[in-house]
Amino acid sequence: MPYVNIKITKDGVTTQQKAELIKGVTTLLQKVLNKNPATTFVIIDEVDIDNWGIAGEQVSVHRNKSK
Amino acid sequence: MPYVNIKITKDGVTTQQKAELIKGVTTLLQKVLNKNPATTFVIIDEVDIDNWGIAGEQVSVHRNKSK
Amino acid sequence: MPYVNIKITKDGVTTQQKAELIKGVTTLLQKVLNKNPATTFVIIDEVDIDNWGIAGEQVSVHRNKSK
Amino acid sequence: MPYVNIKITKDGVTTQQKAELIKGVTTLLQKVLNKNPATTFVIIDEVDIDNWGIAGEQVSVHRNKSK
Amino acid sequence: MPYVNIKITKDGVTTQQKAELIKGVTTLLQKVLNKNPATTFVIIDEVDIDNWGIAGEQVSVHRNKSK
Amino acid sequence: MPYVNIKITKDGVTTQQKAELIKGVTTLLQKVLNKNPATTFVIIDEVDIDNWGIAGEQVSVHRNKSK
Repeated sequence: MPYVNIKITKDGVTTQQKAELIKGVTTLLQKVLNKNPATTFVIIDEVDIDNWGIAGEQVSVHRNKSK
Repeated sequence: MPYVNIKITKDGVTTQQKAELIKGVTTLLQKVLNKNPATTFVIIDEVDIDNWGIAGEQVSVHRNKSK
Repeated sequence: MPYVNIKITKDGVTTQQKAELIKGVTTLLQKVLNKNPATTFVIIDEVDIDNWGIAGEQVSVHRNKSK
Repeated sequence: MPYVNIKITKDGVTTQQKAELIKGVTTLLQKVLNKNPATTFVIIDEVDIDNWGIAGEQVSVHRNKSK
Repeated sequence: MPYVNIKITKDGVTTQQKAELIKGVTTLLQKVLNKNPATTFVIIDEVDIDNWGIAGEQVSVHRNKSK
Repeated sequence: MPYVNIKITKDGVTTQQKAELIKGVTTLLQKVLNKNPATTFVIIDEVDIDNWGIAGEQVSVHRNKSK
C-alpha cells in the first residue's frame, strides 16, 4: 500500500517517460518489499523551474549560469 | 491547527464540491479532536491522470483497460 | 483513488480518534466525489509541538503564552 | 541537504519574490544549521484560492467575507 | 534534481531494503530522465499502521479482517 | 496563510535552532509577501539518516565515505 511522490522540474517529460517512472517504482516496491502493485500509488509533480530553488537560486537562473 | 492535504485526480471537480470537502474535513477535525476551524488548513491538489499511477500504470491507461 | 494527509500536533490522539478521522474522511470523499473507499488512503502525521510553528514560534511556546 | 516546501496562495507572486524566498530560506538553513546551499532544495507551490480552505471555507469565499 | 518521497507502513523494513529502494529509485530517474544522482533526494517515511487508513479503516484493523 | 515544510536529517537539532528556523521563515514570508504570521504554519520533519538518500545511497553511508 505504498505511496510515492516524485517531484521533477517541468521540462517536457513525455507520457511515455512518466509511464516508465510509474512502472519502475511500482516494480521496485514489489521486488524489494513485496508490496502489491494494485494498491501502490505514484504521483508525479512537475515543478516550474522558477519555483524550484537549488544553491539559493531558481533553477531557471542556476542553469543559465552553468552554461 | 491541523493541516490537511487532499490529492485527487483532475476530473472536473466543481467549486461546490471543493467547498464541501473543505467544510467536511474541517468539521470532522472539530468534532473528533476539538480543533479550531479558524486555524485548520485544507489544500486540494488536482493531479493530471497522466501523472498518477496505480497498479504500475497511469490512471489514464488504467481506466481505459477497465472499460 | 484519493490520497489524504492529515497533520496534527502530537497530543495523545487515541487509536479510536484516528479511526474516526480515517472513517470520516473516506466517507466524505465517497459522498462528495463518489470515490471508492477501497483505494482511498489516509495518512495521519502526529507532529511534535517543538517542530510545529505558528505565529513565528513553536506551538510548545505559543501555548504557554496563551495560558 | 535540506528540502523545503513552501505553499502559498496563487496571487501573482513575481519571479523576483520567488527568488527572494529561495535565497532567504537557503541562507537561513546555512546560518542556523550550517547546511550546504549546494544541496538545499526549495520548492514553491502556488495553490489556487478555490483549492485552499481555511475556517471551513475556500480562501476565495473567505476573503470576500472579510471585505 | 529530483525529490522522491516514499511512504510505507512501519513493518520492520531493514536498512538493506531501504538502501535498495534508494538505489533503485535513483537509478530509475537517471535511466528514464537522465537525472544526476548527486542531486537526487529520496526520503522514506515509515508510517505506523494505526496512522494509515485504507478502505475507511486503519491498516492495523484492515489486516486483521483479512486473516 | 502560508504552509512551510522543512525536512532535515535527524542530527541533534536543538529546540533553540528549531525556534530560529520557525521565526526566520515566518519573518521572511512577512517581509517578501506580506503574509500574516498568525496564520503561517511551519512544520519541521527530522528524518533518520538511514531513511534519507542522496547520490543513490543512504546519508548514513554517504557520510562515512566522505570521511
